[in-house]
Amino acid sequence: MTVLALLGDPPTLLDPTTPVLRADDLGVARGESVFETLRIAGGRPAFLDLHLERLARSAARLAIDLPPGWEALALAATEAYGHAAGMLRLTCSKGVPGGSPVGFALASPVPAETLRARTSGVAAVTLTLGVSADQRAEAPWLLGGVKSTSYAVNMASLRAAEAAGAQDAIWVSSDGQVLEAPTATVAWVSSGVLVTPPADEVGTLPGTTAHVALELSPVRVEVRRGTVEELRAADEVMLLSSVRGVAPVVSLDGRELGIGPVTAQLRDAFERAVLDGTPG
Amino acid sequence: MTVLALLGDPPTLLDPTTPVLRADDLGVARGESVFETLRIAGGRPAFLDLHLERLARSAARLAIDLPPGWEALALAATEAYGHAAGMLRLTCSKGVPGGSPVGFALASPVPAETLRARTSGVAAVTLTLGVSADQRAEAPWLLGGVKSTSYAVNMASLRAAEAAGAQDAIWVSSDGQVLEAPTATVAWVSSGVLVTPPADEVGTLPGTTAHVALELSPVRVEVRRGTVEELRAADEVMLLSSVRGVAPVVSLDGRELGIGPVTAQLRDAFERAVLDGTPG
Repeated sequence: MTVLALLGDPPTLLDPTTPVLRADDLGVARGESVFETLRIAGGRPAFLDLHLERLARSAARLAIDLPPGWEALALAATEAYGHAAGMLRLTCSKGVPGGSPVGFALASPVPAETLRARTSGVAAVTLTLGVSADQRAEAPWLLGGVKSTSYAVNMASLRAAEAAGAQDAIWVSSDGQVLEAPTATVAWVSSGVLVTPPADEVGTLPGTTAHVALELSPVRVEVRRGTVEELRAADEVMLLSSVRGVAPVVSLDGRELGIGPVTAQLRDAFERAVLDGTPG
Repeated sequence: MTVLALLGDPPTLLDPTTPVLRADDLGVARGESVFETLRIAGGRPAFLDLHLERLARSAARLAIDLPPGWEALALAATEAYGHAAGMLRLTCSKGVPGGSPVGFALASPVPAETLRARTSGVAAVTLTLGVSADQRAEAPWLLGGVKSTSYAVNMASLRAAEAAGAQDAIWVSSDGQVLEAPTATVAWVSSGVLVTPPADEVGTLPGTTAHVALELSPVRVEVRRGTVEELRAADEVMLLSSVRGVAPVVSLDGRELGIGPVTAQLRDAFERAVLDGTPG
């Protein structure tokens, strides 16, 4: 049920078990590869333009000369997948030294666990990312805001969260500010206001889902910094990402939160927007 | 002149341009892959045991179930390569979800630029890694001391160094302590003593070259923390890594250092040890 398509003019469909990357590809050897994961809804890749813009920004930061043809690749993979609902992953690896970047798309069903997280929420724990909130934005080589496949710390953070009995993590800075989750944007409701940290100031990934969903908020939105104490005292906490959508954080650092009204409304509004293709 | 061998019993030689990793391999998708790079000298992989021990430690930290057969793989690739001098890269990718890890070796000539760096030295600049010296050692999910292919920050740091007119970077912590280089251990000579930071305390990679070379030091060795001010005031600075060996830092943050006597002696002693196969 998984579809693999290679970037090219035209894109090529391959058996998804076919190896596509060489041992000396710089994506394989050094994690120099960028990616986007997006929703397939109503048989279309949702908010494709937003994801392709971000893919291009990430590629520039990794000195990857992004080839053309991504929209055609995404559409070809989605069409070959043939189901109304699913997920699409676009990857561009830097290629072998002196060679060209290698692009490919994988279309596949959304895992049941991801759907469950959207419906029932996740338990999360805060974990330090070790850096101060200003540092990743000020030191571009730390690659804050870049969606690269150098994701081992993200995955190790999720394993650390699981070892603590949770399903997800929320990274905080060394100076106690809320940053992001390993695979999502963080938002919370305090005093009736929906708050999310400013990606450009704290060096986090500008969330495509946050971009779309916050426009649909039933309450006022503030894009500003927040402390871990504010997060822990929040009325509602949520994680926003493309495939999972708006996932309620039902417990944070052991404190029960349940699924609050703003989170539930935003989750439903985002699901409608995904289906409607509202560009946000 | 490059040789590719796949892990297995027995190892398999492949055309090095053959793609070996699937699009959904967790090494490709999430940087969950570990590696070692070592010297081929006298037709043998140098200090193989030290590298295989570290590969196993890195794999454990990434929850990669390292398969057996690495010594046979390294020897098969080195034999097929057939030249006395070269470099060998061993990689173990986590594999596809639910599948087995994929291991492979690449043997190839040492780039002329690397040999030049050993002979003539490199200009280096200090760059912040954003974290405090204690943080990476205390927060295991930050993966300090793990040699994974999630190396985009390492590569971006080298590009930042190049943009500043240098060839290499030395990372310092947010609290001004010397950490490591993106692909090497850092050591310096102060008051006639050779100093290198303690990997376990500051969350840096325990260097195999440092392990071997510091035993050969013509002066007393101290494994202790040091500040960036101490580094900038040092009489000699050097970078230690397997393929390049002991590379003199001939200028640091714009200050000329040249190649000092301790660095030159250590470099030559290490080159002899590589050829002799001294286990260190």
